[in-house]
Amino acid sequence: MTLHQPLMKIKKWQRAEFTYRQQEDPRHFIHSRLAARFSCGDRQYRVSGFYNDGGEFKLRFMPDREGRWTFITESNLPELDGLTGELECVAPASDATGPVRVADGRHFRHANGEPYYPFGTTAYVWNFQAPEIQQQTLDTLAAGPFNKLRMCVFPKHYTYNFAEPRRFPFPGNIREGFDFTRFDCAFFAELEQQIDSLQALGIEVDLILFHPYDRWGFANLERSVDHRYIRYVVARLASFSNVWWSLANEFDLLKTKPMAFWDGIFELIGHEDPWHHLLSIHNWHNPPLHYTSNAHWYDHRNSLVTHASIQHHDLNFIPGWLEHFDKPVVIDECRYEGNVDLGWGNISAQKMVELFWTGVCKGGYVTHGESYLSDDDIIWWSHGGRLKGDSAPRIAFLRGIIEQGRPKRLTPFVRTQDSHWDAAIGFMDDDYWLIYFGDSQPQFKLMTMLPDGVDYRVDIIDTWAMTITPLGRTLRAGERLTLPGRPGIALRLQKAVGE
Amino acid sequence: MTLHQPLMKIKKWQRAEFTYRQQEDPRHFIHSRLAARFSCGDRQYRVSGFYNDGGEFKLRFMPDREGRWTFITESNLPELDGLTGELECVAPASDATGPVRVADGRHFRHANGEPYYPFGTTAYVWNFQAPEIQQQTLDTLAAGPFNKLRMCVFPKHYTYNFAEPRRFPFPGNIREGFDFTRFDCAFFAELEQQIDSLQALGIEVDLILFHPYDRWGFANLERSVDHRYIRYVVARLASFSNVWWSLANEFDLLKTKPMAFWDGIFELIGHEDPWHHLLSIHNWHNPPLHYTSNAHWYDHRNSLVTHASIQHHDLNFIPGWLEHFDKPVVIDECRYEGNVDLGWGNISAQKMVELFWTGVCKGGYVTHGESYLSDDDIIWWSHGGRLKGDSAPRIAFLRGIIEQGRPKRLTPFVRTQDSHWDAAIGFMDDDYWLIYFGDSQPQFKLMTMLPDGVDYRVDIIDTWAMTITPLGRTLRAGERLTLPGRPGIALRLQKAVGE
Repeated sequence: MTLHQPLMKIKKWQRAEFTYRQQEDPRHFIHSRLAARFSCGDRQYRVSGFYNDGGEFKLRFMPDREGRWTFITESNLPELDGLTGELECVAPASDATGPVRVADGRHFRHANGEPYYPFGTTAYVWNFQAPEIQQQTLDTLAAGPFNKLRMCVFPKHYTYNFAEPRRFPFPGNIREGFDFTRFDCAFFAELEQQIDSLQALGIEVDLILFHPYDRWGFANLERSVDHRYIRYVVARLASFSNVWWSLANEFDLLKTKPMAFWDGIFELIGHEDPWHHLLSIHNWHNPPLHYTSNAHWYDHRNSLVTHASIQHHDLNFIPGWLEHFDKPVVIDECRYEGNVDLGWGNISAQKMVELFWTGVCKGGYVTHGESYLSDDDIIWWSHGGRLKGDSAPRIAFLRGIIEQGRPKRLTPFVRTQDSHWDAAIGFMDDDYWLIYFGDSQPQFKLMTMLPDGVDYRVDIIDTWAMTITPLGRTLRAGERLTLPGRPGIALRLQKAVGE
Repeated sequence: MTLHQPLMKIKKWQRAEFTYRQQEDPRHFIHSRLAARFSCGDRQYRVSGFYNDGGEFKLRFMPDREGRWTFITESNLPELDGLTGELECVAPASDATGPVRVADGRHFRHANGEPYYPFGTTAYVWNFQAPEIQQQTLDTLAAGPFNKLRMCVFPKHYTYNFAEPRRFPFPGNIREGFDFTRFDCAFFAELEQQIDSLQALGIEVDLILFHPYDRWGFANLERSVDHRYIRYVVARLASFSNVWWSLANEFDLLKTKPMAFWDGIFELIGHEDPWHHLLSIHNWHNPPLHYTSNAHWYDHRNSLVTHASIQHHDLNFIPGWLEHFDKPVVIDECRYEGNVDLGWGNISAQKMVELFWTGVCKGGYVTHGESYLSDDDIIWWSHGGRLKGDSAPRIAFLRGIIEQGRPKRLTPFVRTQDSHWDAAIGFMDDDYWLIYFGDSQPQFKLMTMLPDGVDYRVDIIDTWAMTITPLGRTLRAGERLTLPGRPGIALRLQKAVGE
């Protein structure tokens, strides 16, 4: 049996959706399976479909190769088994970049080849807030420097987060309980809209699948429900090109989920997500221990982990983590700008900016958060809304500088015995160096970190005042460079060509 | 045979000196040995004497018990063997506190029972500078907050340190070489004056016996010369009550001296110094490694090591070091206030003050240094002279606060899962807490770190402005305390008694 539809045209990396109607029956959530094998030439994907309530089954597909794709379904429902279909994948929209992938070992790139430098922020449950707050969040993001957002599927129970959400991934409510044999498809439809809104802003969604801050029971579901939930989320969302899977925020606080559970979830997503979206897991513990002795961390060397998503306050460890994990390092929490009572959320804007510059010059990527007290308890880190702090414009300034270096990426310059440990130093081959002095205030530097025989144009950057002052002459290895002698200074050195 | 002298009266912890004349012969430095067994009741010390050139042998003794001390000499020179003598040790001078000892496991106390809180500074080779600079140094120290000084026996060869000294521990000079079979007694007489001048200012001398910054050969002496040098220094200086032995600055840069060499020097000093002055060794490497995996460090758990003398920039490790070494932790270098080109010496005064507060509240002690560029290359860290920075008055302010807590000492409050890691917290039993927020800027705190049922008087301290503002009411565990919401704030909480 073949569906008779006009040939669907889908732009590369956009989403095709195929809908099949059956009798309404909530038992479909558990008992009915639908999948399809898509192929285009030698490229083949097995894609899971999902039941969308109301008798509706859906298959979603993100073509990532131009040309004619055909598929055939598999189902334990005879009516949905062996169905075929096709679509024509056409050239991407001019602004479509495709999913983000790991590139060059320790960095990222969009599928279209454009480098991607994550400058993320955090608004864990903005998606559960009132519509006007959600709109504020989108407006703030549209005006801001961020191209990645960490957010949760489940609501958050925590200080400043006690309002009861309207909807949940499962039907029900906290008084009457939840029906874990079904999913609330209206909730997911809303989540999908939110993800699409972020896509329209060019923002990647680092989607957090589990977290410990819970009063509803979502942190302690039965294993079979956990797995069904993961399969369902992946079936619905894997076709969204801007989704990343973050298995958990602070997984090590989910006391009922042992390390083997996470191994299983990595494998399950690895199996269910044909596009292999970026996939990681985020720790809570960050004791002053060397990474190799840190028993609390998931081992990011697992080949299914695409990048290390780390919580830590000391970004000097980044070169060691890059070496140890040999994949990109994203510091997804290193304390937030703000003034709340809790240690994770009360650093100054200056410190937040310092962490960004340090992390980036050390070859990693850093995620922002903001947690200023608010009369209405709408705090960016969790609820979204409006930013109140002073770090975002400086992060925009840094992002601009990094993107001017495109398509190159920074490799950390690991100090030996050269006394350059007052600086975070990253370089892009011989022809680009970014040197950040942080809270050091040298009055001059002997530029002994540079390779010999290259003339550099030098810019002296005030990371707080956001000024870039050209030195006005070129500089070579070993030369003496006079500096402003105050904290927060960086240098950009670019190979002088034909000057 | 008995010397016929009037009974010498020596105040407790002061120095007695007994001189014996022989034929002048420089071979005495190598071939002649003199020692004496001193006793007073059940207290017995074996004290080495030394040859002082010009035919003069000396025995020096610091009586540390009031009463009559007698001694008998031992020598391979028959004329100096079996001599007896005595002295009467009388009550100490009113300002004499005696040598500093380890007390209460992880802290210090003078022999007279007064607590000693080290607030050290560093002027490695002030003793090699011109007399007027030396006087400036003493004047600066007299006006400043420091009660310990790190300084070297050997001169220093390093950036900003290329002037040739006038005298050396060994006779000779860099052109003609040195006579390592002798010592320059005039050099030592000067050093002794310098140590006494510091004693008069109440300053402990953390005397550095070896260091790697050398162009004269002192860092690479023959083993037999190293050992003779150590025995000679100890024989001359062990009777100085304010001396501490620092085996080396940055011992791990002394590439020709393996770990076993340092074991031997610890044993030698342990044997030669009857008073067991404080004894440690100072590292150079401070990679971002956990202490237990740091192969570069001398193992401060060695029972001859009285305290850990550490170089490290991250003072959050202090509670771990205290636990691991189970002895006092002194951070003798954690970067210096200044603006030189070298990473160790260009932090802001704010950062230096932050390091002091952090280290002290974490249960350790911190040593200052200052390295501002200077037209005459007289830089405090090495040459002494004058301070130019802004941290010293703030260190004085902190020292005053700590000494007001006398005789109690701070134990670090090791955070568990309480989100107080935005603060360095030390406490003295239940009745005194010092809480430092560093670069965190909480607008309020729930005081959940405090023990239940105690009413505290609260002072809000601005560590930079040096203000202490009483809260004006008492506070209990768990209460909410409004804070200034800016960096650099500390709290002092003292048990309210009868209020």
